[in-house]
Amino acid sequence: MKMNHYYADLEESYLFSTIAKKVEDYQTGHPDSKIIRMGIGDVTLPLPEVVVSAFQAAVLEQGTKAGFHGYGPEQGYAFLREAVRNYYMSYGVELEMEDIFISDGAKSDVGNILDLFDRDNQVLIPDPVYPVYRDTNLMAGREIVYLDANMENGFLPLPDRRQRADLIYLCSPNNPTGAVYNRAQLQDWVDYAREQEAVILFDAAYEAFVSDPALPRSIYEIEGARECAVEFCSLSKTAGFTGTRCGYTVVPHELNRGGFSLRKLWLRRQTTKFNGVSYPVQKAAAAVFSLEGLAACRAHIDVYRKNAGTIVETLNNLGIWHVGGVNSPYIWMKCPRGMDSWAFFDDLLERANVVGTPGAGFGKNGEGFFRLTAFNTNANTEEAMQRLWEIYA
Amino acid sequence: MKMNHYYADLEESYLFSTIAKKVEDYQTGHPDSKIIRMGIGDVTLPLPEVVVSAFQAAVLEQGTKAGFHGYGPEQGYAFLREAVRNYYMSYGVELEMEDIFISDGAKSDVGNILDLFDRDNQVLIPDPVYPVYRDTNLMAGREIVYLDANMENGFLPLPDRRQRADLIYLCSPNNPTGAVYNRAQLQDWVDYAREQEAVILFDAAYEAFVSDPALPRSIYEIEGARECAVEFCSLSKTAGFTGTRCGYTVVPHELNRGGFSLRKLWLRRQTTKFNGVSYPVQKAAAAVFSLEGLAACRAHIDVYRKNAGTIVETLNNLGIWHVGGVNSPYIWMKCPRGMDSWAFFDDLLERANVVGTPGAGFGKNGEGFFRLTAFNTNANTEEAMQRLWEIYA
Repeated sequence: MKMNHYYADLEESYLFSTIAKKVEDYQTGHPDSKIIRMGIGDVTLPLPEVVVSAFQAAVLEQGTKAGFHGYGPEQGYAFLREAVRNYYMSYGVELEMEDIFISDGAKSDVGNILDLFDRDNQVLIPDPVYPVYRDTNLMAGREIVYLDANMENGFLPLPDRRQRADLIYLCSPNNPTGAVYNRAQLQDWVDYAREQEAVILFDAAYEAFVSDPALPRSIYEIEGARECAVEFCSLSKTAGFTGTRCGYTVVPHELNRGGFSLRKLWLRRQTTKFNGVSYPVQKAAAAVFSLEGLAACRAHIDVYRKNAGTIVETLNNLGIWHVGGVNSPYIWMKCPRGMDSWAFFDDLLERANVVGTPGAGFGKNGEGFFRLTAFNTNANTEEAMQRLWEIYA
Repeated sequence: MKMNHYYADLEESYLFSTIAKKVEDYQTGHPDSKIIRMGIGDVTLPLPEVVVSAFQAAVLEQGTKAGFHGYGPEQGYAFLREAVRNYYMSYGVELEMEDIFISDGAKSDVGNILDLFDRDNQVLIPDPVYPVYRDTNLMAGREIVYLDANMENGFLPLPDRRQRADLIYLCSPNNPTGAVYNRAQLQDWVDYAREQEAVILFDAAYEAFVSDPALPRSIYEIEGARECAVEFCSLSKTAGFTGTRCGYTVVPHELNRGGFSLRKLWLRRQTTKFNGVSYPVQKAAAAVFSLEGLAACRAHIDVYRKNAGTIVETLNNLGIWHVGGVNSPYIWMKCPRGMDSWAFFDDLLERANVVGTPGAGFGKNGEGFFRLTAFNTNANTEEAMQRLWEIYA
């Protein structure tokens, strides 16, 4: 019996467990301190009422003979795929129903899509990065070339045409940096991918935070993207579905590589290894895309957006370099006074009782940087920024 | 860009689409015929009330600030893993909490577990078989050795010690045949797997249908199984969760191969490529394992069991060879009068207006056999068997 020995190449990530341990130790030593958490990328507001109502109604259906739903289509019910298609249409992207696949979240599909590709492909991944892109490729034994994201390029690396590529990971608005590609930059990536006959794996999980109409929310707003890109999206951040679990993946029928239709391969993968998303969850997700649902989600995002604005304003006043926070729930800041990521983490925890995420945890280019998230109450965020101001001004 | 070319080796399965087309054509030509469907392995009874209540309550929590659940543990909430552990304990199997992983269904995990194994492993798969075992291995480029299941061995093949094996698929109660291994037979498999240092992938999706206390419901009832077996189970058939989606996979800490702990590898796989099951679905699943929930599920299973009994009795009276149906919702019958699987399908549809599944669709040894399922109302099943009797007696 031979195991997949590439698992041995994975480094254990102690990032969030180390953070949790440090916070716990500090709280134990200082039981009266009011710690404000701005480290985790998880939403804090509950599901909108219209979503809960639709979810409830579908659960009740499951308890009746007439309304009961057994196995559904692996790629998702037509009612939800149509809602997603109409959502894309609302900002000018036209998709076929069959291009859309409903999933239990972007993380699953970002990992599972790799089933479709040979091990022997050249992978480009930005650094710093959401660790799932890296680890899922290491697990499959693929070599990775890292794209340097840094202050010079505003944490938005562009293609280097001397570099060969087969698979390219892009995330915009970015996790962890909050940086957002503009149309010209994404066009450069799409052109490069087509030159290389590469596939872009585009993570659009934070698209709902884009408020500037000049910025693309979907890679399919870019000419030629249907011929080279798969897009992953999720209701996690759009509608507070981190614990309810629903997302969608777009594999356009125009995307062909090596004599294969990727949409056909993905359908085969999903029908063989997946049984679809829970029917009541799909009903809840469809309610997100109703007019009432979209308005409720926008109201929630506005709460987070206000927090991002508070953070950005404080960092501006402090003269601290940063990106993100305008069209993103993440703010990526340079650690003040030349501190490294973990030194600043400790300093911030001990002196301000505020928790963030050390940038070094996202890759070597993250060293000296720090991620703050807007997922908190307005009051807590204002208090945290007041403390930051008092210490670092 | 190199695609996973093994996808080209997959044959398209037209089994269920061919069935659907034939049924539709017949119904169009005979609009007054009342067709009774006994072909699909999907449940027909709704979720029990106690499950719906727990599901509803958790959905309401998701709509409140205090009760909202964001990201949960990838391996499932402790409340559900504990419920599963107690369920196993109720028939004498003791597991560690950390051996239990909650999933969105057995199909996902049966496919995804292959991430842990090298391509270069010898796979044994019974024929006839649930096609997912075969297709997921073909997708990964593994060679398959088929185990002949046939009338001579009662569709319960046993190990042949001249055959080398690394991965062994067993499903008991079996899909499609309904045959159930006894303890001695499973012990033989466990002993063989340990001799070979192989891993058994044991599909226990139909364990709730085992009524004979002498028959094992879990492979962990067999001595030594913790050192060589992963078990997949699901609430799909136990509690009518085919459309609600929840299952569990057991990877015992005692199971090590090639210097790796499989439990550790699986945890790493799941934390990297999965984000856990929807919180309200997990709450619904936990209610299944309450005393009230188990009683309600047993009552549903009794409805199906009565159908299985009706089918078995009819086949006995007709003198038609069959297995299954006693501790299983599936009955695997020899086609009468020497017909092949599809000839009998057509005959049964046209003369009795009853739909089943041609055995040939499950592998070469399925030719000449036919699967009937107990997932229907008692009245429909009785009527279908009355028609069968009138035609084939």
